[in-house]
Amino acid sequence: MNQHSSSRIVQFVGGALGPWRIDQLHTVTGPPLITAARLAITSRQDSCTYPYQWALLGCTSNQRYTNHLENAMLNDAAHREQQSPATHAALIPIRKNDTWWTLPQDERRAIFETRSHHISTGSSYVPAIARTLYHSRDLEQPFDFLTWFQYAGTDVNAFEDLLGKLRATEEWSYVDREIDLRLSA
Amino acid sequence: MNQHSSSRIVQFVGGALGPWRIDQLHTVTGPPLITAARLAITSRQDSCTYPYQWALLGCTSNQRYTNHLENAMLNDAAHREQQSPATHAALIPIRKNDTWWTLPQDERRAIFETRSHHISTGSSYVPAIARTLYHSRDLEQPFDFLTWFQYAGTDVNAFEDLLGKLRATEEWSYVDREIDLRLSA
Repeated sequence: MNQHSSSRIVQFVGGALGPWRIDQLHTVTGPPLITAARLAITSRQDSCTYPYQWALLGCTSNQRYTNHLENAMLNDAAHREQQSPATHAALIPIRKNDTWWTLPQDERRAIFETRSHHISTGSSYVPAIARTLYHSRDLEQPFDFLTWFQYAGTDVNAFEDLLGKLRATEEWSYVDREIDLRLSA
Repeated sequence: MNQHSSSRIVQFVGGALGPWRIDQLHTVTGPPLITAARLAITSRQDSCTYPYQWALLGCTSNQRYTNHLENAMLNDAAHREQQSPATHAALIPIRKNDTWWTLPQDERRAIFETRSHHISTGSSYVPAIARTLYHSRDLEQPFDFLTWFQYAGTDVNAFEDLLGKLRATEEWSYVDREIDLRLSA
């Protein structure tokens, strides 16, 4: 029944194989995720033919909070190219609590951008820190979002800085499960 | 990996069996959907052991556009009870075009409610016309939304009235596929 030419759903597989080495897996909040040696990013249809510890699904989707000015800014930023090879990556799976999900759209937007500056903070690090957001909640996965970051070795400190700012926001107080994976190519 | 106690994903199966008789299946816009005798609403895990023509998945999710006042109004309406048995139903699968999905959130909200009055129109028919919205787009289904309506035989005209108002809106100009199924218990 699928009429899309290419799937927007991807699978992050933590196991024995894959192009990314998992250098660190840290449980920040909530139930832990067991560690794995390597990470592969595959399509949903690919079945794993090697031992793996977990497979997390996520889907790229439409923007949920950005207004037209922010959209224009993000599109502009996305067209500037990274200067150095993005040999480093981070995968941050998070889940938000029921209080967040029952808030109306205008209150979520107010927390997300007006008070937590999620969009403007993130975009100020583009193109050095490239970011892709995958939605998992409606796929009934253990996390609501998987965020994939890629950056050069020279931008490791910039990434720490960005992540620190996001975690200090009011928005983050709704996160009840968070895992922090750091990877290298 | 699923930690939810009950699944939010349901499957609408058009086939030989099911509690709802399909009285009419009309393709309003875009590619047709073949007809079927009956409709069953099952969980995603149930496999069909009888002949069926199609199975459409959808997921109940958080509200995407309602503000706090509208949320309060909808919650209030949802607690008023239907007076007569809801022996009639309609399933309206729709897909919206790429123009819609690339609009920023504030422009979609403006079209959806400020100019099309989707929320206030729908809620003025509650509790007579009960409505459940299922999201299908991120499940990579052939439709973006499946809306399920239930009402008494005495409210058939009210339902026609509601549907006519929705179809006349600016929002509906973004719909590029729509099927209209009418059912009875």
